[in-house]
Amino acid sequence: MFYLIGLGLGDCKDITVKGLEIVKKCDKVYLESYTSILTCGVEALEQFYGAKLILADRDLIEQGADEILDDAKHSDVALLVVGDPFGATTHTDLVLRAKEKQIDVKCIHNASILSAIGCCGLQLYSFGETVSIPFWTDTWQPDSFFEKICNNHRNNLHTLCLLDIKVKEPTLESMTKKKKVYMDPRFMSVKEAAVQLLEILKKSESIVIDESSLCIGLARVGAEDQQIVACSLSKMASVDLGGPLHSFIVVGPKLHPLEEEYLLQFRIV
Amino acid sequence: MFYLIGLGLGDCKDITVKGLEIVKKCDKVYLESYTSILTCGVEALEQFYGAKLILADRDLIEQGADEILDDAKHSDVALLVVGDPFGATTHTDLVLRAKEKQIDVKCIHNASILSAIGCCGLQLYSFGETVSIPFWTDTWQPDSFFEKICNNHRNNLHTLCLLDIKVKEPTLESMTKKKKVYMDPRFMSVKEAAVQLLEILKKSESIVIDESSLCIGLARVGAEDQQIVACSLSKMASVDLGGPLHSFIVVGPKLHPLEEEYLLQFRIV
Repeated sequence: MFYLIGLGLGDCKDITVKGLEIVKKCDKVYLESYTSILTCGVEALEQFYGAKLILADRDLIEQGADEILDDAKHSDVALLVVGDPFGATTHTDLVLRAKEKQIDVKCIHNASILSAIGCCGLQLYSFGETVSIPFWTDTWQPDSFFEKICNNHRNNLHTLCLLDIKVKEPTLESMTKKKKVYMDPRFMSVKEAAVQLLEILKKSESIVIDESSLCIGLARVGAEDQQIVACSLSKMASVDLGGPLHSFIVVGPKLHPLEEEYLLQFRIV
Repeated sequence: MFYLIGLGLGDCKDITVKGLEIVKKCDKVYLESYTSILTCGVEALEQFYGAKLILADRDLIEQGADEILDDAKHSDVALLVVGDPFGATTHTDLVLRAKEKQIDVKCIHNASILSAIGCCGLQLYSFGETVSIPFWTDTWQPDSFFEKICNNHRNNLHTLCLLDIKVKEPTLESMTKKKKVYMDPRFMSVKEAAVQLLEILKKSESIVIDESSLCIGLARVGAEDQQIVACSLSKMASVDLGGPLHSFIVVGPKLHPLEEEYLLQFRIV
């Protein structure tokens, strides 16, 4: 059996009881380590689960899928995923490949940032399409997500912006070489996201989003040291919320009175 | 301390390890019992948690909030919520009241249908605004959710439709009386949702949604006997997916190849 097990968002105890029971009985346990991270380290996970974890980066999961799955034909194999397993396309692809090989798949759901984001008090039903904000480079500065934020705003909806993470990314120079050199991990902060949005605003003729638009910055949702601030986009460009992971919300134009009241506790000016 | 603890979507073992530890140490444990249900009964929960559960219906939570919270000033009180605690407005309101009373609040996140819905293979980032489909009565047949579905469709987005549940609703006749008589619990099925949508179609001039629009019906997501079917809206009106809870998706007009491939396993004609 091939198990996809969500780990939730905080530390090792955010796994479900069902998930933990399965991890403990599995012959091989992989930890997907490139679409998200927990606030605790891998050692803490291994100790708590009582299992050796095999770190699975993008290469291993995308190119080594056969290897991972073939074991699951005759034994129990688990892939642990931060958040909920169906948050990323790669995992859907893995399930398809498993089914082709006639391997049974079971998914253990858990908290995802897509619903945990409700902790800021905004109603989950008032969010539009979720967008991703990628790190810009000197030569690649995509901004198509901005139109989606504006579109949500016009429809009176909030936008959850997932912020880029780069883990085990080869350097540009080593991309074509046999021996890859990897960059240090990078996690986009709400500050960096705000700066990129302000850059886009300079060039755009948007009349729905501007420097004064209300935004929410969240850090380490679900962890003990979770932080939330609500302020204007321009103010957010100087906010420091500490370590990863961060999430960013562009608030819709009209708030429900309960949303408004709830946000007061996070307001900074 | 006042704890809001998500139970996830399936049975008693879908609580997180952290959540279970807290339940076991709490002095009073309420189970919110009107916005959702688990597939296992209350007795199974009590036995597994080793705690007596106080069933909290809408009246108790909305009118008895003071009573629930005042205990939390001097002892540990938990409110257990199916799914993730911030899925419903009532719980946000409770947190606000707790803060007014200067009671510390802690939230333990868990899987919510809003992200677990990814189990059907549709990308979570391709969903627009979530809508709720309410039970119609002879005199009350709201259809404002239909415009939202059409709007998502025009934006090339899927729509998750949460289906109404009625638990401990007083009968119309007893509403004004002192002694309330309660209706049997009702949970909208994908079949009923499809029938209502087809009714709306008859009266509307929609050119984006029609009888042949692709829909997905899901039952008991996260449970052992989870079921998923994908078919046209008209076909869905004759589909029986068994016991509650059901969820419904109106699929957007364009599918990603991976979404398309994944849905094949659920297709019926």
